[in-house]
Amino acid sequence: MISDVTPASAGNNLDPWYGNYAERTSGLAASEVRALFAVASRPEVVSLAGGMPCVSALPQEVVLDSVARVMREQGPIALQYGSGQGIPALRGQILDVMALEGIQGSVDNVVTATGSQQALDLISKLFLDPGDVVLAESPSYVGALGVFSAYQARVVHVDTDADGLIPEALKQTITRVHNEGRRIKFLYTIPNFHNPAGVTLSATRRPEIVAVCQSNGILILEDNPYGLLHFDEPPPNALQSLDPDGVVYLGTFSKTLAPGFRVGWTLAPHAIREKLILATESAILSPSSFSQLVVSEYLASTDWQAQIDSFRGVYRERKEAMIDALSEFLPHLTWTNPRGGFFVWLSLPDTLDSKQMLPRAVRELVAYTPGTAFYADGRGHQAIRLSFCYPTPDAIRLGVRRLATVINGELELLDTFKGTGPLHVIHREASSALDSAPPTNIK
Amino acid sequence: MISDVTPASAGNNLDPWYGNYAERTSGLAASEVRALFAVASRPEVVSLAGGMPCVSALPQEVVLDSVARVMREQGPIALQYGSGQGIPALRGQILDVMALEGIQGSVDNVVTATGSQQALDLISKLFLDPGDVVLAESPSYVGALGVFSAYQARVVHVDTDADGLIPEALKQTITRVHNEGRRIKFLYTIPNFHNPAGVTLSATRRPEIVAVCQSNGILILEDNPYGLLHFDEPPPNALQSLDPDGVVYLGTFSKTLAPGFRVGWTLAPHAIREKLILATESAILSPSSFSQLVVSEYLASTDWQAQIDSFRGVYRERKEAMIDALSEFLPHLTWTNPRGGFFVWLSLPDTLDSKQMLPRAVRELVAYTPGTAFYADGRGHQAIRLSFCYPTPDAIRLGVRRLATVINGELELLDTFKGTGPLHVIHREASSALDSAPPTNIK
Repeated sequence: MISDVTPASAGNNLDPWYGNYAERTSGLAASEVRALFAVASRPEVVSLAGGMPCVSALPQEVVLDSVARVMREQGPIALQYGSGQGIPALRGQILDVMALEGIQGSVDNVVTATGSQQALDLISKLFLDPGDVVLAESPSYVGALGVFSAYQARVVHVDTDADGLIPEALKQTITRVHNEGRRIKFLYTIPNFHNPAGVTLSATRRPEIVAVCQSNGILILEDNPYGLLHFDEPPPNALQSLDPDGVVYLGTFSKTLAPGFRVGWTLAPHAIREKLILATESAILSPSSFSQLVVSEYLASTDWQAQIDSFRGVYRERKEAMIDALSEFLPHLTWTNPRGGFFVWLSLPDTLDSKQMLPRAVRELVAYTPGTAFYADGRGHQAIRLSFCYPTPDAIRLGVRRLATVINGELELLDTFKGTGPLHVIHREASSALDSAPPTNIK
Repeated sequence: MISDVTPASAGNNLDPWYGNYAERTSGLAASEVRALFAVASRPEVVSLAGGMPCVSALPQEVVLDSVARVMREQGPIALQYGSGQGIPALRGQILDVMALEGIQGSVDNVVTATGSQQALDLISKLFLDPGDVVLAESPSYVGALGVFSAYQARVVHVDTDADGLIPEALKQTITRVHNEGRRIKFLYTIPNFHNPAGVTLSATRRPEIVAVCQSNGILILEDNPYGLLHFDEPPPNALQSLDPDGVVYLGTFSKTLAPGFRVGWTLAPHAIREKLILATESAILSPSSFSQLVVSEYLASTDWQAQIDSFRGVYRERKEAMIDALSEFLPHLTWTNPRGGFFVWLSLPDTLDSKQMLPRAVRELVAYTPGTAFYADGRGHQAIRLSFCYPTPDAIRLGVRRLATVINGELELLDTFKGTGPLHVIHREASSALDSAPPTNIK
């Protein structure tokens, strides 16, 4: 069955096409977030894991009205193919949304997408050859790491602190990577209410980061899903506003309206935008006219800024519930205290391992995302991402209490068996009360 | 500004990031179809170019009812992220749709997508390394050629006739490509009411094509957007039904419901399906829950087979209008007479060039797609794809009459200047009545 010129096409019993996949396919792996979606769906588990927005804070009748109006007034357009760049009216409204973060763009340079994840994927497709380097915060968004890996790029993390990316660390990292003879294609950054770290790039650092990238000829890919979801004052203006020719900006309606529509966008310099439209057409012909028109009608007929303000209130309350619970139940640990967005980054003592602890946590009916998901280089074992976006304040309090039970239990166990070896060995050898098999739906 | 280790990152005046793109980006080119979408949108032009379905044949209130029910009964699910594989209920309904073409699949092996174009893109992403060969009909779907090119694969066309792919030609092509030491990743085929050729793979050839692929270890990618849109008897059963382990099947609701939802799907063998889900999550996190639920509700609450039958009637009438007009106005030419789908393939005399003739056609207010769009190897100058899906029968008749004026005008010109050189030279040098600049929106 196998021709002699295609030796690698040999299959195996599990997959007859095993030898036929592209090289890049080996970079596709089930993310920890993916496995956690399965866990999170069990109703008895308090999930502090997923990044699902609180869509119940959106009045359903407002959306229904928009949908009904679109179908009545623009039905044939909503049902038809559209342009690869997206519906012009919506692209104009997207300019209004971005203006809130200091961006002055042209409607010609906006390209809509099936969520900003698709924009991230297509920009990566346009720029990344195998072996190219992408710079990213330390830690960085798990879904972006997956995209870069699928294009066989290598992520090099840049140190961050409570004020976001550290300009001096960025400079040093660039020098080091260049000295290794490797090619940097872009800096991927989430400046506002970072996923997963919860930190925001300070106003003073923004021009510094831009200047470092400019002087090294490095494009910036600015991903800003959370910028409008601030709990007190707005974050500083977008990096894009400081260097429109050097920044590709990604935005989305997933957090300020609803992810179910899958409507996001890119604002890109002219030449990149041209290529992005072609890449969009190749990937999907055109984004959903139906979804885009519903979002456009929603923006036209609703006080959408008031709705965003109402989302801010929901998430502010949940963030406070989480910080209060952490202070009460885990006072000996440290965490970030975000001023917006969805996530808190919890640091564990060096003796604990967030990934190995997860099965125990799920048995205690609480789920989180281990820090390892947010590093491309194996780090993150001493960190946890906690999401406060989806559960109610009461559930958050319950979840953090359960998490504290797990963490404190591990620490006590460690203390009891001090000096006898790493904790996972202790678990296996000493703790007969623990079922050794983790739930099968956790990778 | 440019580091010495990244010499290729040198930009230019038009695009400072010119040297930074991935190698694959050079394979992205504006398709002729894309440029034609712009032309087709001018109301005075009769477009026989695009493949837009007749969504006005779908009762708007039926869709509106489905949308309203989804928002009322499943609002929070419709607005939220979903699974990368797609909504389970819809995947079950997709099995019912495929059963009409002889397919018995498992709901576990169905993966929904942002239109079947995305499925095509992601399967290509999973399988194609630069330099790999994809076999495809001669001619083949322009949107597929674009995808393969974007992954730096090379398309080798296989001869077809009125009964579709020729098994002997397939065999010979495989041998030739293997003898050249090149690696074939899959056969891409549209067996039913082919785009653009309008032909259907005969029942006797189907097992032969499958056997040739099986014996050479070649995966089949079966793209079937038009199979249910037959004008008389249904086409033979899908290739997938003959070899479920050797065929990846692509389907869509774009032609049997509406493209604006962007809902298509893949039915794939288990191991490929697993990788496809990961690729989907990397590309877009999850397909639109909103769109999928609306389609699912439409299928659950409507006599969707009757609606497909009503579409069949619309397209049958339009096809007949086109064939009648061709018989009347261009009796000296030949064309395919499809028994379903959207397209007629018109052959031109060798002396004409469909691509060079297009600007003149647009000036005569008729648009078509030149055959060159459907070949990866430069052929197609003596063919035209005519779409009968979107214009009314009257418009089709008018469009074909205008086209005949252009074609007959070109032939007369040729006859007048017989022996003086190719027609485009004649145009440039001899015909002062013609404006030498083609419309800028046609490539």
